[in-house]
Amino acid sequence: MKRFEDLSPSLRCIMTPGPVEVDPRVLRAMSFPVLGQFDPEFTNIMNETMGMLRELFATGNQWAYPVDGTSRSGIEATMVSLIAPGDRVLIPIYGRFGHLLHEIAERCGAEVYTIEKPWGSVFAPEEIIAEMRKVKPQVVAMVHGETSTGRLQPLEGIGEACREMDALLIVDAVATIGGVPVETDAWKLDAVIGGTQKCLSVPSGMSPITYNERAEAKVLSRKQVERGLRTDDSKLGGMSPVRSNYFDLGMLQDYWSPLRLNHHTEMTSMLYALREGLRLVLEEGLEARFARHLLHEQALVAGLEAMEMKLYGNPDCKMPMVTCVTIPEGVDGEAVRSMLLDDFGIEIASSFGPLKGQIWRIGTMGFSCRKNNVLRVLGGLEAALLRQGCKLPAGLALQAALDVYEQV
Amino acid sequence: MKRFEDLSPSLRCIMTPGPVEVDPRVLRAMSFPVLGQFDPEFTNIMNETMGMLRELFATGNQWAYPVDGTSRSGIEATMVSLIAPGDRVLIPIYGRFGHLLHEIAERCGAEVYTIEKPWGSVFAPEEIIAEMRKVKPQVVAMVHGETSTGRLQPLEGIGEACREMDALLIVDAVATIGGVPVETDAWKLDAVIGGTQKCLSVPSGMSPITYNERAEAKVLSRKQVERGLRTDDSKLGGMSPVRSNYFDLGMLQDYWSPLRLNHHTEMTSMLYALREGLRLVLEEGLEARFARHLLHEQALVAGLEAMEMKLYGNPDCKMPMVTCVTIPEGVDGEAVRSMLLDDFGIEIASSFGPLKGQIWRIGTMGFSCRKNNVLRVLGGLEAALLRQGCKLPAGLALQAALDVYEQV
Repeated sequence: MKRFEDLSPSLRCIMTPGPVEVDPRVLRAMSFPVLGQFDPEFTNIMNETMGMLRELFATGNQWAYPVDGTSRSGIEATMVSLIAPGDRVLIPIYGRFGHLLHEIAERCGAEVYTIEKPWGSVFAPEEIIAEMRKVKPQVVAMVHGETSTGRLQPLEGIGEACREMDALLIVDAVATIGGVPVETDAWKLDAVIGGTQKCLSVPSGMSPITYNERAEAKVLSRKQVERGLRTDDSKLGGMSPVRSNYFDLGMLQDYWSPLRLNHHTEMTSMLYALREGLRLVLEEGLEARFARHLLHEQALVAGLEAMEMKLYGNPDCKMPMVTCVTIPEGVDGEAVRSMLLDDFGIEIASSFGPLKGQIWRIGTMGFSCRKNNVLRVLGGLEAALLRQGCKLPAGLALQAALDVYEQV
Repeated sequence: MKRFEDLSPSLRCIMTPGPVEVDPRVLRAMSFPVLGQFDPEFTNIMNETMGMLRELFATGNQWAYPVDGTSRSGIEATMVSLIAPGDRVLIPIYGRFGHLLHEIAERCGAEVYTIEKPWGSVFAPEEIIAEMRKVKPQVVAMVHGETSTGRLQPLEGIGEACREMDALLIVDAVATIGGVPVETDAWKLDAVIGGTQKCLSVPSGMSPITYNERAEAKVLSRKQVERGLRTDDSKLGGMSPVRSNYFDLGMLQDYWSPLRLNHHTEMTSMLYALREGLRLVLEEGLEARFARHLLHEQALVAGLEAMEMKLYGNPDCKMPMVTCVTIPEGVDGEAVRSMLLDDFGIEIASSFGPLKGQIWRIGTMGFSCRKNNVLRVLGGLEAALLRQGCKLPAGLALQAALDVYEQV
């Protein structure tokens, strides 16, 4: 008796802030037979991936490689390796994922200082720099694009201030990498974490990171060689060792270096996927890709406004790849989402915490960010809202979006 | 200019202790388009996977789900969640991966006690139980199958003793799950960690775990709801919180429960792969799968002995799926391995630490564990050894292996 059927997932139009649709070339890459982890063909794929990640992160850093886990694994690896217990850590918070950084820093044993902005807005860099002067942190950790509220935090100037005050700057660019500029070197970011399942449009499962020599110095000061691999001359760092083995960047970089010191077994098929996703990004070109995200945002917003939907949050700091829509009064937001999924095969997202039930979040990320998807979500949303008894000017949304596309 | 070529990995015969070859059905599963993480179709796939994992682990435990990372992510998640800082932890060590457990326990802040056996042998359960009486540990953590030496540790009786002494027993079954019996309930194991890239023959990238109510009680006593998701009535546990967010089993189980409390974004394509790999295991049947691993081990060993190779380690505790061969005097082990890979497309493994350069390790795991592969590695090894000038009786190895297969 066959109790579990053949896998046959429905085809979805995924317009959430991730995970989003995956290019068929990336799906195909995962279907190739695997290589052993120390096979020279495989270590060559590892090196090629590092090369492409450097371009993605706009950096000359030696270290740019994926952490093997979902996006928050890259965040935790970076934080637990760069934050020693007792370190003073400043975390500016303007949405859910700032709270996540707070929580992770706390679990790292940090002395955490936070400043908060109301959800829907962001900080002026000077506000953060002023707080740094008070707190004198060893580490500043912040979110670049906050998908919970759809806001984009400007980073210019903060990295420079961190160097002056001898602090390390960690930036969570999970939602922004590959969608808007993330200028690791130009903005003097010491460590940056990206995500795969958003603007890169690779399935969830890896978290590409990069960090510079300032960050590496701290990693090396805490370094240990793994028990079972140690030799008498294995050098040990002087500071408190990293509290995690899996997330110890000192060990990860030995594995990703020509040393190839055995640590975990690299995720073969996910690396194939990441490599193919990065090829797609670089073939399109970063600038073209950023422009594409802006174009489809513009069409989506034009359509939503023609439908008389109210956008949530301060428009001056809106993320191009996430559009937050206030759920109209009297409309059951979850009923609309269910109807979109069940009848139209379209997925949009709700939000978290104080915004739960208040807004929908529509993503235009990576491979999902394309004309037919934008038109499809606008058409579906209009029909679902009308069906739920919501009053709106019918037929205008798609025309407004088409107008935007015609102007290109 | 295309700087990075199309992916086209060579086809390999992978006879290592992992990662091993992947069934084409599993590779195909990864090529399906992704679903959103809260899509009911996807949460159904999560639930089906939990159901199949319970069968794999031979358990009635509620909790059986994958941790999103490579095998050691499951080990670290289990240890960091079940070991509170200051806990007394006993770790019996008989190879490299016992040292890894020691290292992880130390990083968890445990007071670690170890006993060691020379590599190549294992403990009698009574020796471990006697040490427990002295140490009075809160947690005992040990490896079931030690791939570094190819030894299998008997576990019977240790779980019972842990209950009497109120200790939790954590077992690393990364290399054994799906290859030999792992009787979670019958052996009273409190937490068990499996691996995907070995006897399950799913690519590296997930680590299935299971744990019982005794383990869950400790997890819940340390529970926190994530900052940014907390409500005023979120219950917090009394004991010291888990030092990791990513690996906090209290959070992971909320995500895998009907609550679906958002944590990480589940690895869609890897979960498709795991689900298909588990279907293959259950279609074959666990007993038949264990018997298959024994048969091919027997054929491999017969061939190696006919070739006058010396097997490493105590034969009474040999793992069926890893066969360690002493590198004959005067033979350059790495030259043989390179020749096998470059000329024959066959990969076998070297080993770690004190065994580096001393032995080869030949895996017969999961999908790689089949007749044509065993014959291929024997034929290739014989030819490579002859080519390196090693004296051995030519032509006998394959005949000996074929004799074993004919007797079935």
